[in-house]
Amino acid sequence: MGLIVQKFGGTSVADADRIRNVARIITETYRRGHNVLAVLSAQGDTTDDLIAKAAQINPHASKREMDMLLSTGEQISCSLCAMAIEAMGYPVVSLTGWQAGFRTNSVYSDARIKRIDTERVLAELDKKAIVIVTGFQGINKYDDITTLGRGGSDTSAVALAAVLHADLCQIYTDVDGVFTADPRSVEGAAQLDEITYDEMLELATLGAQVLHNRSVEMAKRYGVKLEVLSSFSGKPGTKVKEVAKTMEKMHVSGVAKDKNVARLAVVGLADQPGIAFKIFSLLAKENVNVDIILQSIGRHNTKDISFTVGKQDMERTKKLLEDHVELLGFDHIDVSDQIAKISIVGAGMVHNPGVAAKMFEALYNAGININMISTSEIKVSVLVDLADADRAVQVIHDRFFSEFGTGN
Amino acid sequence: MGLIVQKFGGTSVADADRIRNVARIITETYRRGHNVLAVLSAQGDTTDDLIAKAAQINPHASKREMDMLLSTGEQISCSLCAMAIEAMGYPVVSLTGWQAGFRTNSVYSDARIKRIDTERVLAELDKKAIVIVTGFQGINKYDDITTLGRGGSDTSAVALAAVLHADLCQIYTDVDGVFTADPRSVEGAAQLDEITYDEMLELATLGAQVLHNRSVEMAKRYGVKLEVLSSFSGKPGTKVKEVAKTMEKMHVSGVAKDKNVARLAVVGLADQPGIAFKIFSLLAKENVNVDIILQSIGRHNTKDISFTVGKQDMERTKKLLEDHVELLGFDHIDVSDQIAKISIVGAGMVHNPGVAAKMFEALYNAGININMISTSEIKVSVLVDLADADRAVQVIHDRFFSEFGTGN
Repeated sequence: MGLIVQKFGGTSVADADRIRNVARIITETYRRGHNVLAVLSAQGDTTDDLIAKAAQINPHASKREMDMLLSTGEQISCSLCAMAIEAMGYPVVSLTGWQAGFRTNSVYSDARIKRIDTERVLAELDKKAIVIVTGFQGINKYDDITTLGRGGSDTSAVALAAVLHADLCQIYTDVDGVFTADPRSVEGAAQLDEITYDEMLELATLGAQVLHNRSVEMAKRYGVKLEVLSSFSGKPGTKVKEVAKTMEKMHVSGVAKDKNVARLAVVGLADQPGIAFKIFSLLAKENVNVDIILQSIGRHNTKDISFTVGKQDMERTKKLLEDHVELLGFDHIDVSDQIAKISIVGAGMVHNPGVAAKMFEALYNAGININMISTSEIKVSVLVDLADADRAVQVIHDRFFSEFGTGN
Repeated sequence: MGLIVQKFGGTSVADADRIRNVARIITETYRRGHNVLAVLSAQGDTTDDLIAKAAQINPHASKREMDMLLSTGEQISCSLCAMAIEAMGYPVVSLTGWQAGFRTNSVYSDARIKRIDTERVLAELDKKAIVIVTGFQGINKYDDITTLGRGGSDTSAVALAAVLHADLCQIYTDVDGVFTADPRSVEGAAQLDEITYDEMLELATLGAQVLHNRSVEMAKRYGVKLEVLSSFSGKPGTKVKEVAKTMEKMHVSGVAKDKNVARLAVVGLADQPGIAFKIFSLLAKENVNVDIILQSIGRHNTKDISFTVGKQDMERTKKLLEDHVELLGFDHIDVSDQIAKISIVGAGMVHNPGVAAKMFEALYNAGININMISTSEIKVSVLVDLADADRAVQVIHDRFFSEFGTGN
């Protein structure tokens, strides 16, 4: 009887029929006595269409104007969904990011939520209205429209669920839940009933693409109960929470692949303290997200630092470093975007040191070369050649999930 | 060297090339040393596309949600235009209706501007930025998005020009200016260099469709100098101001046709005082715009009241009156939308009583029947059968403009 936040992605609202389907899911939840707040993404191709329009006019448009443009996508899907709910006879109101109180910082196209002024949303919920909120967007201190970057609508939904103390935040998508690997490309991938925030976090970060890491981090921090489920199948999804009941049993929860990876190797750095600090504070200042970092000894008293960034950031990161060659003092920079990151994730891994070895063995047996390795308490990631990526996921998945059912 | 407000309609921003063209017009004005504030409509078919999307989902969607939906159209065209100006290397910022401070009443889809909080716009102009503002929209006291109804973008532009004391408000459109009749359908129609607010007002009201009456009224009230011109031809347009230099010479400035007319005849009303008041206050309360009103004596101590409304309002006006038949006491209502209103307008008319007669004579000679007549100081309107409309305009235009050049 409490508040349920439901988030619907772009494929879930792609056309009139699907919007009506979403309206049915929302109103059924409402009819069961819940307050419902739905967060919507833009319709399927809307964002791509708008980006194409912009590219035609100015391929280097400012991010401020891009956000102004792109934020219309969610406004369209939300008003259409509100109309569908009106047609079913329920009280409903759609709200833009600024109307729903989303205040963000000023990093256009990749803004962070600073606070949500919930007054308007609460007033509407008090009136027993179904509230439809545009995901992905807010306004900054200048009252300019910002967008939240990748996975922004998930973040919007979880943030609202957190500040409103919602009982549940349901992330509706086009898959049935979280799988042990991508079911579209890996044979034998199975759906998980439950998963911990930390496992989900590693999977999201690693390119499982079901939920973005920012939203999972936020859910973990504020204790928001998540459920990932399909807006099409009507089947139960995967619950994401603090302690998953299957945790002890499974060492590895899933295998993830991320093709949006580029590697930069800064070669021939002077072997002196503070050089890593200089590089990565420079990149942080320019909002370059760095993932895996590896430092190794080079020749003649130098060292090399390799790291990965998103493909879209590869060129500008290279240029940024080259512009500061005098400050940093290096010989040259090697880059490659023909790589992929494959990871296994599992909260049980920390107690089972053999897990990483098992993964490497599977790759070795398949003749797949490992470029870089990175580990954390609950994951092991390797960089492999892009051409080997799909096969790598399959052989690793087979190794962990086919031997003894899903028992690892 | 002052401030120039420029308004561009939907055809002027229909595609990438046209947006670039608009950006050129704006930046050329800016380069001549002016502050420039441009108000844009939605791109050509965007509004129609959005309306079609809504109709697919809910043909009876609330106007509140329609405004939420439709207001995205101008946001798209404005951000794209800002990008085009960025590409040309000029400082620019696009603003939505609420960002530009447009506060309106709460009549969704047909809101009236209550005030404009100019702080943000002035700050941007102070910074020497070109400011691009979405026409047609604002927000009400609930912070909900409203749209201004027909001709709304013209009104937005003139309102901004008024509060900012702009030196000139240029209305860019797809015609070269104001003509003595619609040049697309009337042979011999000629462009006017200048025209008075009052003449323009009558022409706009009467369906000349170059400028909406609301914007002309506002321009007159606040003394905003207007110029109507083409965004394509680069030719000088028509200036609209208090006293036009050609006023004394011309008796008739133009001939206008309005096909968006429906006539309702309320037949058999009791012949008692207050009946007209009752009818029209009822219609006003429901936001039905009434145009020509005619009252005549009916049979048996009754009277008939005929009036015209926009075609889109015909059915609901009929129903509204029938719902109140007990209050109003009438026999029945006749309706027709197979009519058109043809009008001649001219500030010189008031001193030349023969002008109306000349118009009737032209129609008589052409065998065109007149259904209703309405006159003001500077116009004469007649209702004719829709089938006769185009021919009526031509014969009237020929009568006034072909005899002695444009000398009437």
